Amino acid sequence: MKHILSILLVMTFFTTSFARKATWIYYPGDYEIWLGNEMQNRRTERGGFFPPFWKMDSHYVAVEFSTKLDLPAAEEIEIYVEGKYNIKLDGKILPAYDRMTIPAGKHNLNIKVYNQANVPAIYVKGKTFGSDETWKVTFEDKEWIDESGKASDTSSGTTYLNAGAWNFDSPDTPPSKFKLATTPMDAVKIENKEKGILVDFGKETFGFVKFHNLSGKGKLSVYYGESPEEALDKEYCETLDHFDFGNDSRDFVTPDSKAFRYIYIEKDNNLSFDNVSMLYEYLPLEYRGSFKCNDELINKIWDVSAYTMHLTSREFFIDGIKRDRWIWSGDAYQSYLMNYYLFFDSPSVSRTMLNLRGKDPVTSHTNTIMDYTFYWFMGIYDYLQYTGDYNFVQQFYPRMQSLMDFCLSRRNSNGMMEGLAGDWVFIDWADFKMSKSGEVSIEQLLFCRSLETMALCAKIMNDPENEKKYSALASDLREKLFTAFWSADKGAFIHNRENGKMSEQVTPYTNMFAVLFNYLDNEKTEAVKKNVLLNPDALKITTPYMRFYELEALCALGEHDYVLKEIRDYWGGMLNLGATSFWEKYNPDEKGTEHLAMYGRPYGKSLCHAWGASPIYLLGKYYIGVKPEKEGYKEFSIRPVLGDLKWMEGSVPTPDGDINVYMDKQQIKVSATEGEGYLYFTSVSKPKSNTGTIEQIEKDKYKIKITSSANEYIIKGKF
Amino acid sequence: MKHILSILLVMTFFTTSFARKATWIYYPGDYEIWLGNEMQNRRTERGGFFPPFWKMDSHYVAVEFSTKLDLPAAEEIEIYVEGKYNIKLDGKILPAYDRMTIPAGKHNLNIKVYNQANVPAIYVKGKTFGSDETWKVTFEDKEWIDESGKASDTSSGTTYLNAGAWNFDSPDTPPSKFKLATTPMDAVKIENKEKGILVDFGKETFGFVKFHNLSGKGKLSVYYGESPEEALDKEYCETLDHFDFGNDSRDFVTPDSKAFRYIYIEKDNNLSFDNVSMLYEYLPLEYRGSFKCNDELINKIWDVSAYTMHLTSREFFIDGIKRDRWIWSGDAYQSYLMNYYLFFDSPSVSRTMLNLRGKDPVTSHTNTIMDYTFYWFMGIYDYLQYTGDYNFVQQFYPRMQSLMDFCLSRRNSNGMMEGLAGDWVFIDWADFKMSKSGEVSIEQLLFCRSLETMALCAKIMNDPENEKKYSALASDLREKLFTAFWSADKGAFIHNRENGKMSEQVTPYTNMFAVLFNYLDNEKTEAVKKNVLLNPDALKITTPYMRFYELEALCALGEHDYVLKEIRDYWGGMLNLGATSFWEKYNPDEKGTEHLAMYGRPYGKSLCHAWGASPIYLLGKYYIGVKPEKEGYKEFSIRPVLGDLKWMEGSVPTPDGDINVYMDKQQIKVSATEGEGYLYFTSVSKPKSNTGTIEQIEKDKYKIKITSSANEYIIKGKF
Repeated sequence: MKHILSILLVMTFFTTSFARKATWIYYPGDYEIWLGNEMQNRRTERGGFFPPFWKMDSHYVAVEFSTKLDLPAAEEIEIYVEGKYNIKLDGKILPAYDRMTIPAGKHNLNIKVYNQANVPAIYVKGKTFGSDETWKVTFEDKEWIDESGKASDTSSGTTYLNAGAWNFDSPDTPPSKFKLATTPMDAVKIENKEKGILVDFGKETFGFVKFHNLSGKGKLSVYYGESPEEALDKEYCETLDHFDFGNDSRDFVTPDSKAFRYIYIEKDNNLSFDNVSMLYEYLPLEYRGSFKCNDELINKIWDVSAYTMHLTSREFFIDGIKRDRWIWSGDAYQSYLMNYYLFFDSPSVSRTMLNLRGKDPVTSHTNTIMDYTFYWFMGIYDYLQYTGDYNFVQQFYPRMQSLMDFCLSRRNSNGMMEGLAGDWVFIDWADFKMSKSGEVSIEQLLFCRSLETMALCAKIMNDPENEKKYSALASDLREKLFTAFWSADKGAFIHNRENGKMSEQVTPYTNMFAVLFNYLDNEKTEAVKKNVLLNPDALKITTPYMRFYELEALCALGEHDYVLKEIRDYWGGMLNLGATSFWEKYNPDEKGTEHLAMYGRPYGKSLCHAWGASPIYLLGKYYIGVKPEKEGYKEFSIRPVLGDLKWMEGSVPTPDGDINVYMDKQQIKVSATEGEGYLYFTSVSKPKSNTGTIEQIEKDKYKIKITSSANEYIIKGKF
Repeated sequence: MKHILSILLVMTFFTTSFARKATWIYYPGDYEIWLGNEMQNRRTERGGFFPPFWKMDSHYVAVEFSTKLDLPAAEEIEIYVEGKYNIKLDGKILPAYDRMTIPAGKHNLNIKVYNQANVPAIYVKGKTFGSDETWKVTFEDKEWIDESGKASDTSSGTTYLNAGAWNFDSPDTPPSKFKLATTPMDAVKIENKEKGILVDFGKETFGFVKFHNLSGKGKLSVYYGESPEEALDKEYCETLDHFDFGNDSRDFVTPDSKAFRYIYIEKDNNLSFDNVSMLYEYLPLEYRGSFKCNDELINKIWDVSAYTMHLTSREFFIDGIKRDRWIWSGDAYQSYLMNYYLFFDSPSVSRTMLNLRGKDPVTSHTNTIMDYTFYWFMGIYDYLQYTGDYNFVQQFYPRMQSLMDFCLSRRNSNGMMEGLAGDWVFIDWADFKMSKSGEVSIEQLLFCRSLETMALCAKIMNDPENEKKYSALASDLREKLFTAFWSADKGAFIHNRENGKMSEQVTPYTNMFAVLFNYLDNEKTEAVKKNVLLNPDALKITTPYMRFYELEALCALGEHDYVLKEIRDYWGGMLNLGATSFWEKYNPDEKGTEHLAMYGRPYGKSLCHAWGASPIYLLGKYYIGVKPEKEGYKEFSIRPVLGDLKWMEGSVPTPDGDINVYMDKQQIKVSATEGEGYLYFTSVSKPKSNTGTIEQIEKDKYKIKITSSANEYIIKGKF
């Protein structure tokens, strides 16, 4: 009896477990491409449609899904499909049933779907199994039949991947119907201005404008602004909507969501509405990371950074919410890093990386930008470290290789990357002039890091031949960096080399990344710190984008006090100017509406740009001090540093848990809900802990092992 | 005054000429892929959807169309677009106007379109210009703007092709709405059978079934058959339709067109209809080629071949109309050749070739079949020769190269092609057993011809480096063919070599193609003729597919009497069995319903298969005797041969004209409406002509130059 009972228990377990797990599945990477096309082709510029200028790929229009079954009993399944489809049970084609019974025993179940407009997707739910990421998918099953009617051996020559999925866990939520969430929000102020009304929603936001009880006949115009100046400038505001109503009487919601804080509305006299509000549109994400300290300005900067990050974390990580709303690899790379310290939403990272990669053949750099190709590789490096999702590499290694092949095919005779026709060498929006010609040192550095990433992935794929190849290419290039670009005279890397001739210019970029990548010996590190990073006469970065790496490099060099001061000045500077989200670019020397202009347009600058949110990352990684030491936080390190703060507390998310840290000058409290690692700290008095064993490393330097089995580690000392 | 007048005349000319020429345009190759997906995913098997098993590609979803204008006066244009779009005039984005005025002077006009479901397409019509194949298109314009708002130089790094177009010459006929033409046809016989009615349309046909005044409630089933046996066999007929009506009273037309001659209909008693007819569905094509002779059987064979060819010439050249309705490269290759002697519809050839090629990356052989990849290349060779459309190569040379690169990457250490995992080595549906393993000689031969085609295309592209490469590869392989496969012992090529060991088998394939490609010296030619082609003990071909090349080879060897006899026996044999179109396979030794079976299914055989129509080609090219000697019939040759006929007359279409030939034993009459060439003939008496000068080549052999300037050349002699 006992034996039978346990079998029943197992069966019950499977029933509930699998039935719960059924989800819509598709060819991995395809939904990411399709959804990206939907999103990125929503950009408008003053009413004109403004599509991306790089290649937009497509999903495979005919996809076969398959699974192998071994059913203890006959089982009825429900089948939901996006597309025209057939079912094949043990090789026999059946019509497109939406419900069928599969007999007990072993079976091959295949469903083949054709859909040109949307991504072929299926949702299958039985009692003991359902569609999930264990299903196999292919875009060419190569199953021909010979003259006798015998099917070819399909096990050979066809590449199968594991199905892709997100969170479409109900038959009623097919992937093609995906929408972001919305929630109603009221205006904080509505005032008459000029010939209409100016509505202020109190902070930068994103969504649909709602006109309550709109009635009558005539024209309605909405001018959006991140600033009141922009909303009121009908001739130059970046986005606008014009509507024409016949004779309506209803609540009217604008069809396309937009970014704004202010809207200026004009209408014909025969048209009226009772009120204006909005539907805030967002990706539902949990704020899993947190930060608090004694300095309210820093707290405010963290909060506004988190909001900026949330506004730009949408279908994908995008750049700015007003203008491009596109997926840019360099911008997204920073979002990945910030995400690890705020949402830890891995699907947002993989969705974004898959969209950016697109499909073969590679016809240009990612977003056409050379550096953005390299950030794509670097994103994988971090993704593996933070999430431990090796499955990503297993599925997409061929796409990594073909992108790297594209790079390798474009090297010059020195084995370096130079901008060829159609390549955009971006680097940064700088206020100083810099050359993008010849061999630009920062590009080689990022290329080198990309090659190291490929070596790591080859190792994961158990591909020793390519591991060797990529490693050799990386170390060769790393060596060349120093011979080609290091100036002993200037004690820094110079910017570029043209026709074999070193330029005279030192820019911060190569120097700060070299610190971050740990490519420098002590002497060179000190030189870079002195001659570039802390040199008041060095060229100034005016984008949060590159301040990200500059300040990170300074944190890595232990300049925590300096960095806090910079954060207060720079991000605090934006707050002083009324920012409710952080900007694409900020130059403290500019005045008034100069802050709004960019790209030769008075409101061209984006006042909510993902790369503005970096304090989240800096504070989480270098003050709270948490980072993974082994893939997926299997092992972590905690190196809390107060800088000039009196106290701070915060938590950093891990794949399935959190690491919580509190620190003041006398006490450090730490807990972790998964994994294990070490807390490293400096104390000028001998520290004590409530649990575990503190080990001394050198004078005043200690470590203590942290595991998730203890509730909380409390260390007393003089920090 | 005179000068001004002539300008006005010129302007009038442009106005009417260009306005007439406006047509829907799209990215070349994209519509062919999209339409192929539509068509090929209509296959059903007993109600179940049956999609192709190879990769289905997609159109580029975002495409930029551009043209440069120089307008004498401001001009209003109309704009029709399939997709979401913007207009850019001289670099400035405008909203999606459907009508706008362009000022006089020089302008850059760009229209960028996004469409996921259908192919981005535009139709622009002004007074002096319109959208046509002179417009440029790209799927990545790479036009970024720098911080100052300056657009990047778009002239570099972006590949532009000429726009593609077909015949969508009205704003009301956008490409996505394309439908084949239909025309009503009545049944020739309706009789009660079993529990329903059997309807006979008198011949093989294709279309929609129409139920006149269908009324009442209940189920209606339609069973389609190419034979009465199939239509009446509810369990095994290949295609069927089930409908369920609520309470209708209307004419009902089945939604999907099907192939059939017979339909068997069953219905519920509460359902009634007055009559059944059909809508014949077809591609409107002109029968430009013709053939008549004293032998009515041969005339009937030509007519039924032409009808077979027309039934299978649809959105694309397909294989059989009942079953696959897919585009198969080997089948299509023969359709191309037959087309040159019947419709001379070049767009049908290029449409089919572009669909078969699809897009990069190449992940398998064309249709997964190794030989079908090679037929794709060979199709280009002939296409250039017959149509002279070098523009095709200029647009698609990179796609030719990547397909050839795929082949080159799969050679074995002998430089030969062997079937790897996922490769289907097809050759033929043969009734004898043959190996598909190791180095199969026919595959190497076709590969060699493909390399020669690439060398020709490289030459057209002015790419001497690759011309040299492909030529060297071709001649190297040609040499190896003889060392590896020629058996002096058997006086023939043997079938294959496995592990370095020649097999013993001689099959007709390699031998007959070697004759066609002119690869053999006289001695080997005679050996092949004796030991294989005319050897009654040689292995027998039972498909019209390979009989095509077998009989062509015999024609090339001057065996016209023998070939006519074979045509009468083989195609006449099908007619004797009641064929109204020619079959996928015909073995005279089979009996009764054996003729209907294939693939292990009682009605698996297609009774209307493109490759059944080859007599059109053989009679046009080897009896009427017309073929191009230089690209696009700039120069042609006419070598009429009566065989055992008393007289024959026919015409062969050229790109913009016809060549007409009459011949009996005393007289040859020839006229050509374009181009020039020579009539070659043999006369045992000294011949005379009404015009031109007859030149003697050798004893009894003569030629006379034919130009389109003369009305008709009449040559009297003893032929």
